[in-house]
Amino acid sequence: MPVTATAAGRVLAVLDAFGPSHAALTLSEISRRSGLSLTTTHRLVGELRAWGALERSPDGRYGIGLRLLELGALAPHGLQLREVAVPYVDDLHQATRANVVVGVRDGSDVVYVEALRARTAVKLMSRIGGRWPLHVTGTGLVLLAYASPEVQEEVLSGPLERFTPQTVTDPAVLRRTLAEVRRTGVGIAENQLTAEAPALAVAVPVRGAGDEVVAALGVTVERGTVQAQALIPALNATARGISRALGAPSAQPPRRRT
Amino acid sequence: MPVTATAAGRVLAVLDAFGPSHAALTLSEISRRSGLSLTTTHRLVGELRAWGALERSPDGRYGIGLRLLELGALAPHGLQLREVAVPYVDDLHQATRANVVVGVRDGSDVVYVEALRARTAVKLMSRIGGRWPLHVTGTGLVLLAYASPEVQEEVLSGPLERFTPQTVTDPAVLRRTLAEVRRTGVGIAENQLTAEAPALAVAVPVRGAGDEVVAALGVTVERGTVQAQALIPALNATARGISRALGAPSAQPPRRRT
Repeated sequence: MPVTATAAGRVLAVLDAFGPSHAALTLSEISRRSGLSLTTTHRLVGELRAWGALERSPDGRYGIGLRLLELGALAPHGLQLREVAVPYVDDLHQATRANVVVGVRDGSDVVYVEALRARTAVKLMSRIGGRWPLHVTGTGLVLLAYASPEVQEEVLSGPLERFTPQTVTDPAVLRRTLAEVRRTGVGIAENQLTAEAPALAVAVPVRGAGDEVVAALGVTVERGTVQAQALIPALNATARGISRALGAPSAQPPRRRT
Repeated sequence: MPVTATAAGRVLAVLDAFGPSHAALTLSEISRRSGLSLTTTHRLVGELRAWGALERSPDGRYGIGLRLLELGALAPHGLQLREVAVPYVDDLHQATRANVVVGVRDGSDVVYVEALRARTAVKLMSRIGGRWPLHVTGTGLVLLAYASPEVQEEVLSGPLERFTPQTVTDPAVLRRTLAEVRRTGVGIAENQLTAEAPALAVAVPVRGAGDEVVAALGVTVERGTVQAQALIPALNATARGISRALGAPSAQPPRRRT
């Protein structure tokens, strides 16, 4: 529900009207989805367009403008992390030819800041800026397993959205899964997100300068084509490279004894 | 100059305070850079933070939040184009081991929607969301050469910003360069953007469903390591693949005669 009581809230409500399934909207669709009058919508869309947050396509519909991509790219835990990770991720993608993603936690969601997909990938669930609940993806499970107890309890106590018949929605089962992720350092999700293509997602943590988990690195393959265990060494090696580049103490090369 | 006369203008002025060199700001820095009072800044930053447009780091400074990355990723000429281009760009990056970018035009600037950089790259001028004037990059020259006469005249009549001693700032020289780009289908920029590392940028057009130029594909290498001519076949092959994936008529395979 957009909070349209304030001026800022109304501006943000216009932006909130847009989403992956609603990337191009007419003025009246924006008005309806934002809960704002057509007059107010018209005025705000005009201002947002002049600034570059929205753009108008030849068919008269509005979409997100490049100014927001430019600004969104400045998110410190977003594309700035991507800049460090991209050569490592690229190598992993070449080696595995799988979908590779880097995700960071935003509240109770994972947001992908990098996504390289296999050319054969049936369905595109992973793209930069993609957002999913933590409990349904490999990267999300890793981020949740290493989050603070407060974050974990909040997710475990909230409703766990179901995406497929296999999605884990029982808090007790999820709690055991998280303990397993912490024990093994690996998050595994099978058929949690889409029923259309049987998928296996495997993810490991990426650590920052304070050795805290700042991101998760994951690959997704068609289920049955590769064993999860076979993907872990390459994932760990790549995650270690990114962690080292981020300054993680535990990922630094051991000091030579004299 | 931010237009802070309207409520929307004030919200956008807060966002405008952030930039590549100003990715983390204190409240008073935002206030100063946006021209808003500290009280107004405090209130708007609070609303933007609650919505996810801004986030606060442990040191108390504010940065761009992941919600803006998520939203910015929906730009139809931005990361959506990237989704189509990424497997082709990835192959080109592997083949050339050069910096590879895909840029689209936004007014008189080029904005990068994809950037894969060589691991040896000295300086990072190319990143997703990066924005440069059209006349100083290879991709920018291609986009300008194929833009409407109105856009070209506007850029040619405006001041042409100088970045290095070699930057072309004479409209007559630029006009000849653009004619050459249209004749050859290739944009070449040498040492136009940074004086720190001698760079050669070569770019070619990417066409959309109406056969219009919708983007430019470019590589940047250290000057002297590779001849521009040697990069063109791989660039053209890759651009053709992306154009075909975008539905460009001129990039479709020739029909077989019966």
